[in-house]
Amino acid sequence: MTGLLGNKVITQIGILVHDIDKVSQAYADFFGVTKPDAIITDTVDIAQTEYNGGPSPARAKLAFFDMGSLQVELIEPDEHPSTWRDYLDEHGEGPHHIAFVIEGMKEKITLLESKGFPLQQKGEYTGGRYAYMDTFKELKVLVELLENDKK
Amino acid sequence: MTGLLGNKVITQIGILVHDIDKVSQAYADFFGVTKPDAIITDTVDIAQTEYNGGPSPARAKLAFFDMGSLQVELIEPDEHPSTWRDYLDEHGEGPHHIAFVIEGMKEKITLLESKGFPLQQKGEYTGGRYAYMDTFKELKVLVELLENDKK
Repeated sequence: MTGLLGNKVITQIGILVHDIDKVSQAYADFFGVTKPDAIITDTVDIAQTEYNGGPSPARAKLAFFDMGSLQVELIEPDEHPSTWRDYLDEHGEGPHHIAFVIEGMKEKITLLESKGFPLQQKGEYTGGRYAYMDTFKELKVLVELLENDKK
Repeated sequence: MTGLLGNKVITQIGILVHDIDKVSQAYADFFGVTKPDAIITDTVDIAQTEYNGGPSPARAKLAFFDMGSLQVELIEPDEHPSTWRDYLDEHGEGPHHIAFVIEGMKEKITLLESKGFPLQQKGEYTGGRYAYMDTFKELKVLVELLENDKK
């Protein structure tokens, strides 16, 4: 029994916020770490962002905190349609996804879709790519796939 | 900089659900593991459950999944007032808390309260005790403290 992902190690928890600067400072103070600089996801021409099957100019500010063997990722989305923006509008601030490192992104997306878990959003980042699969109905949280290029 | 907890290793993500049997089966199928038996928290006389400063008869069914170095804890609360029931009623199903193992529960609760993070619920379990601190406004997720008795 290897499961659909071939992996069950949670590598990241993603949390949606309205004000990443303020929440980053709160995490830094609470956990006694330096406040990280927020980064911003690439523009659609570079990130090739697709949401619900079409390209989206949506971007987000991200900040990462190492919390043991996994990261907390704070996410402040812009106003364009994305899984981040729509989930934030619907659920309010709070956790959005758990992430897993996988191999073979295209095959994994096909497999998950065949099992009833639709692709919601995907894109590229420097060194890899991500995909959010809509597992909310079944798992009560979204699953993000992360594939990192071999170095 | 050690932070308020003296620890930043996330040991658990707690997820609220309406039907623990159904969601446990979905996790088992998705991650390729055996469906665990749900356990039920102790009655108030044993658990000494306190919610918002007073005793509460609230109980919950729990199911645990090992996901790398941390656990996913599924939580199906009963109808009595608790952090689980009230958060579920307010936010719907989904992630509720991240948990950290700490030492010195009483002192940690006092310290966190002095920093503006109120105690929301606490109780005993076999081998230890827990406390949910209301960090939602600042961290956008609740923090649970877990103290395990020395063996």
